[in-house]
Amino acid sequence: MNEQGAEAPGLLQGHYLEDLSVGQVFETGRYEMTPEAIKAFASKFDPQPFHTDEAAAEKSFFGGLVASGWHTGSATMRMLVDSGFLADGFIGGGAEVTWPRATKPGDILRVRGEVLEIKPSRSKPDRGMVTAEVTTLNQRDEVVQRMVTTLVVHRRPA
Amino acid sequence: MNEQGAEAPGLLQGHYLEDLSVGQVFETGRYEMTPEAIKAFASKFDPQPFHTDEAAAEKSFFGGLVASGWHTGSATMRMLVDSGFLADGFIGGGAEVTWPRATKPGDILRVRGEVLEIKPSRSKPDRGMVTAEVTTLNQRDEVVQRMVTTLVVHRRPA
Repeated sequence: MNEQGAEAPGLLQGHYLEDLSVGQVFETGRYEMTPEAIKAFASKFDPQPFHTDEAAAEKSFFGGLVASGWHTGSATMRMLVDSGFLADGFIGGGAEVTWPRATKPGDILRVRGEVLEIKPSRSKPDRGMVTAEVTTLNQRDEVVQRMVTTLVVHRRPA
Repeated sequence: MNEQGAEAPGLLQGHYLEDLSVGQVFETGRYEMTPEAIKAFASKFDPQPFHTDEAAAEKSFFGGLVASGWHTGSATMRMLVDSGFLADGFIGGGAEVTWPRATKPGDILRVRGEVLEIKPSRSKPDRGMVTAEVTTLNQRDEVVQRMVTTLVVHRRPA
């Protein structure tokens, strides 16, 4: 539900490469973005006034406090890891990220993912590359982050 | 130099949209990725064993502890903000990110940026969109993150 751990969805556990299929959809647990966490993250990593100070944020572009996009991305990562959808560690090769709408204090986020492509590695038989669309939604089903990411996923150990 | 603030480069301060030109290059201060910070970030946002536990990391894909890509991205953001290159707050519309090499404990990162494109907004005369290539390097000049990002940058107030 927060930095101590996303709520476990209890639906999907430990997928290896051979368990995945193109078009497969998954959903994570939820994650609350508190004003305290938004300001703490931003004070470390993105200390712009609209992320760290309510009064300054009211006079900004956003009209109020909003989370750093990197905080939304990091929270998304936590939900993905906690979902247990991918087994035994997965490694991100890269990502295309957009933030169509700001994450605001009190937002309850969740992630919906879809497997777009699966490519077994030719040179390394223990793994493959999986491309997924990962959409982060708030409690009103509005998209706060859209990401297409390529992951290294392990095959099931022999 | 760390989460308390990147070393100030003292070279470039407060660029508004009209101060930028295509091809312009900038460099930020440096940022140290300590093992403690790598594990603390990952325990909150990316709790996979190769980010949180030295012993488990040694047996992993990476052969040792490495930073979460989101940590490298967040540190990059901190260096960008602290560099003062862009004035008065800037807002990320999106980014394409790759992590060609892992960030390791003790790495000293810095960022080199280049302005690729500048588009004044037609509908909102106080701002424009700037596309920049933002490369994060370690102390051996190896690229740990490559990013092309689009930013909303303010015009100088009248």
